[in-house]
Amino acid sequence: MYRSHDCGVLRIEHVGQEVTLSGWLQASRNFGGLTFIDLRDRYGITQLVFNQEERKDLAEQANKLGREFVLRATGIVRERSNKNPNRPTGDVEIDVHTLEVLNASKTPPFTIEDETDGGEELRMKYRYMDIRRNPVKENLIFRSKLSLETRKYLSDNNFIEVETPNLIKSTPEGARDFVVPSRMNEGQFYALPQSPQTFKQILMVAGMDRYFQIVKCFRDEDLRADRQPEFTQIDCEMSFVTRDDILETFEGLTKHLFKTTLNVDLPDFPRMSYDEAMERYGSDKPDLRFDMEFVLLNEHTKGHGFSVFDDAELVVGICVKGKAGSYSNKDIKKLTEWMQRPQIGAKGLVYVKYNADKTIKSSIGKFYTDEQIAGWKYAFGAEDGDIVFILSGEEEKTRKQLNELRLEMARVHDLIKPGDFKPLWVIDFPLLEWDEDSNRFHAMHHPFTAPKQEDEARMLNGDHETMKSLRADAYDLVINGSEIGGGSIRIHDRALQSKNFDLLGFSKEEAEAQFGFLMGAFEFGAPPHGGIAFGFDRLCAVLNGQASIRDFIAFPKNNQGRDMMIDAPSPIAKEQLIELSLDLKLEEKE
Amino acid sequence: MYRSHDCGVLRIEHVGQEVTLSGWLQASRNFGGLTFIDLRDRYGITQLVFNQEERKDLAEQANKLGREFVLRATGIVRERSNKNPNRPTGDVEIDVHTLEVLNASKTPPFTIEDETDGGEELRMKYRYMDIRRNPVKENLIFRSKLSLETRKYLSDNNFIEVETPNLIKSTPEGARDFVVPSRMNEGQFYALPQSPQTFKQILMVAGMDRYFQIVKCFRDEDLRADRQPEFTQIDCEMSFVTRDDILETFEGLTKHLFKTTLNVDLPDFPRMSYDEAMERYGSDKPDLRFDMEFVLLNEHTKGHGFSVFDDAELVVGICVKGKAGSYSNKDIKKLTEWMQRPQIGAKGLVYVKYNADKTIKSSIGKFYTDEQIAGWKYAFGAEDGDIVFILSGEEEKTRKQLNELRLEMARVHDLIKPGDFKPLWVIDFPLLEWDEDSNRFHAMHHPFTAPKQEDEARMLNGDHETMKSLRADAYDLVINGSEIGGGSIRIHDRALQSKNFDLLGFSKEEAEAQFGFLMGAFEFGAPPHGGIAFGFDRLCAVLNGQASIRDFIAFPKNNQGRDMMIDAPSPIAKEQLIELSLDLKLEEKE
Repeated sequence: MYRSHDCGVLRIEHVGQEVTLSGWLQASRNFGGLTFIDLRDRYGITQLVFNQEERKDLAEQANKLGREFVLRATGIVRERSNKNPNRPTGDVEIDVHTLEVLNASKTPPFTIEDETDGGEELRMKYRYMDIRRNPVKENLIFRSKLSLETRKYLSDNNFIEVETPNLIKSTPEGARDFVVPSRMNEGQFYALPQSPQTFKQILMVAGMDRYFQIVKCFRDEDLRADRQPEFTQIDCEMSFVTRDDILETFEGLTKHLFKTTLNVDLPDFPRMSYDEAMERYGSDKPDLRFDMEFVLLNEHTKGHGFSVFDDAELVVGICVKGKAGSYSNKDIKKLTEWMQRPQIGAKGLVYVKYNADKTIKSSIGKFYTDEQIAGWKYAFGAEDGDIVFILSGEEEKTRKQLNELRLEMARVHDLIKPGDFKPLWVIDFPLLEWDEDSNRFHAMHHPFTAPKQEDEARMLNGDHETMKSLRADAYDLVINGSEIGGGSIRIHDRALQSKNFDLLGFSKEEAEAQFGFLMGAFEFGAPPHGGIAFGFDRLCAVLNGQASIRDFIAFPKNNQGRDMMIDAPSPIAKEQLIELSLDLKLEEKE
Repeated sequence: MYRSHDCGVLRIEHVGQEVTLSGWLQASRNFGGLTFIDLRDRYGITQLVFNQEERKDLAEQANKLGREFVLRATGIVRERSNKNPNRPTGDVEIDVHTLEVLNASKTPPFTIEDETDGGEELRMKYRYMDIRRNPVKENLIFRSKLSLETRKYLSDNNFIEVETPNLIKSTPEGARDFVVPSRMNEGQFYALPQSPQTFKQILMVAGMDRYFQIVKCFRDEDLRADRQPEFTQIDCEMSFVTRDDILETFEGLTKHLFKTTLNVDLPDFPRMSYDEAMERYGSDKPDLRFDMEFVLLNEHTKGHGFSVFDDAELVVGICVKGKAGSYSNKDIKKLTEWMQRPQIGAKGLVYVKYNADKTIKSSIGKFYTDEQIAGWKYAFGAEDGDIVFILSGEEEKTRKQLNELRLEMARVHDLIKPGDFKPLWVIDFPLLEWDEDSNRFHAMHHPFTAPKQEDEARMLNGDHETMKSLRADAYDLVINGSEIGGGSIRIHDRALQSKNFDLLGFSKEEAEAQFGFLMGAFEFGAPPHGGIAFGFDRLCAVLNGQASIRDFIAFPKNNQGRDMMIDAPSPIAKEQLIELSLDLKLEEKE
């Protein structure tokens, strides 16, 4: 027997019992006559005591043990004279009479503490040491709990979890596929799924009615900071539903998850159209934990001879409450430069300070009278002491730039209350985006998304311009400015699906080769259906108020798509290549 | 609103209510004045009625609908005059006043009935029609329930579900890997996991203590009848445990699953050593639902001048109760030929009939006296009316051949009671198998399996012959002759792991390149640990008394590894190959 109890469970009521514990040496302290060892396992830390006078050999053995040694100790639970109220086991300690080293440890490459001295790369290479640290361990336990609660809720709501295949077919649309050469089908490849989209629709055609899956998906993209080549989705689909059925079900799921993991009661989620979100926040995933709504200034600023505004499609600003005094000329210059970086690309940044002493200071003071500028104050609902920032230019770009500024203001001025959660449904997305470069439409959500019912006829019969105005029956769940998930009502009619592929630039042959099975299925009694997918890694991070998904993934890959611990990917044997009828062509790329 | 109720829920107490149902047209019957439609969804079937006199247009519309049309119907629930006691909704029907065709259907390629006229290939191509059939649908629902109950049980027992990566490193040991070319790491490949073995061990080193995952695994093997290139495991690992801790935990899980899905109470599972299983049943996965234990006949049969037996390493037989009268000479000849097929490879088959009339008839009557043959009766515990079959030859081969005969006798004579479950732990497997062809040892379980503690010193210091006698701390769960899962206590010591790789023919460099990260982890405080994995697809099938796993998988692949519905694998675009620095070399294989 390795243990009678774990290291987190002993309390004052266990005093006098003989117990056996196993775990890792977290820390040891030698006070001459007494040696204390903190023994750690997943469940907690318990103090072991060795008395030099009573058991000399044992105490000397204990003094030689290093950090992260694996120990088994047997002894009697006794009350501590010096209790530790910060530790659940802090009332007791173990007077050890038998000690065994189960395994030794070399000196850890970084400290196994909540705040570690290990850098990102070292932590990933020795991930098995990193996961011993509380923050990472707790994240993984949280993730496990979140997935179980998701499954319980969806199962209680009649959803069936169905595993869809991982070895599927490559479809060049969208992001790049990871492909898998088939040995048994020479020259052919499987692809790893970017999502189970077509399979879950097929399951609806198959009459499964309510499907879900917590499922790995794969995208071979150039990895940005917080992307992973493999990621996890809560993937769902429902039959005989309208949008509101889906929103209610998954609002229910989200509330359940917040309640069962954080004990947070979320209020009903507001809904906002894509157009409204863009107008008020310049983003389709607005962070509602703080205000600073966009204020349209076209009518207030145009026609007064300031050509920058006069020539602009849009003049728009935000008001930062009480911060007029926080911005010196130098600060403004720095912020302007930040806005002018290529990542944001603003041409300039106009400010107006409504100072606490009622004076007004603005970078465009010479183009507008003080009365005119004072007039804008009402548009902003600004008060003395506030500062206003104004951008101008082409409508879409300018809104996006101002969105960046709004987010930066919230960060800089610490406007976000920790533990605050603001969920939002964004609805009524455009169906199609016109892409000038490729001279064709792209699906804003994906090619299976249905237009809103009232737009269906226009979609089937409209001209090119009409297509730009079609609305999709699509929706995103946004929490605290993060897109948690999205979905749509799907097309379930072959003619409409065919028309959509047409608009998206598929030839009849391409559409048939890639999605013929789905269009075929639509001819055998496909029910109306729709669904949603939540990014599970992101959901974990947002619930914990963390920006990065990486520490919610046990073994994440770095920005080059490498697993630093196992050192993958790696070359494979020549024999494997031959079996797969493949040859490396390393020069072709250069 | 598509529906107020589903098609399985309406009862006599709903009579008088107006309801809306949506579903598929299962069948329609036109009796002149009245048309009946059976409307089906996942939850059941409800009868719709259309009265020609009351609503002529509606009834005529209903008469034109074909099988599998998707309908929405609104009407009043009323009591049926002609009740159907075989259907939960059989007391009521819907007097329809509003009917809408939500989608049409072409004539289905096979009948959507429990017994279908569709062959395997057609069913796979139109899997979305096949899943509408009750048996397949119920299998998938069962699977979903089984996975949820697995998760509940393991979570209640402090197991954490951790997702391990799917893009890992290729290790040529064991079965073939599916590999995934990396675009970002030119000329390098990921592999899909054959199991999360090394990762779950790493999680133990990481202090996770109890890990599980229901996880897809991948093996690029030539597919036999009931293998799939991707399959699902319940994968587990525990720290600070001995074998018995693991067996108790997973016996508990298995009992829980039988209880919650089938309401079957399993008794405690017997345990049998590998040696005993081979001796008594000639198999490491004996089916205990029927007897016919092997009876060793060496001492009874040798030394009487019958050279076939005299020269044989082993003479062994089974007794088939009460079947002496069932075997004519022709039957025996047929059975002998069946045993002589290359799949089994027996040289011949000896029989003894202890006839009901007390006469004895045997194919070797001329070599033994009737008294001698009558003497064997006691060894077999045979009675008048029984027939005995005897095989002889090299020990291991002969046992395997007799195992096949034993299973065949159970099939032919229908010795298996439906709904009977006989679980069994097989323990104490050999650690290593000597392979004459490759002139090296193979791991019987896998290279991470620990020897039994008492064999550890012999393993580190013993000679070549000693290695053949080492026992592994490994175990299999067998139910009804199917291997449900297996596992072992793992090596957690670098020196012992290194020795094992050595025995298995790895060079130091190969071991380091492939498993260096694991051996490195063992040096940083690896706890004693062990685990187990259940084949989830197989578990589903065995619980349902079915031989094939295929209909417990939503979208299985055929024996060529093809998905017949989506037609994968398939060629990929030249541009994809270029991006991946790959070239097809289709001629090299020939």
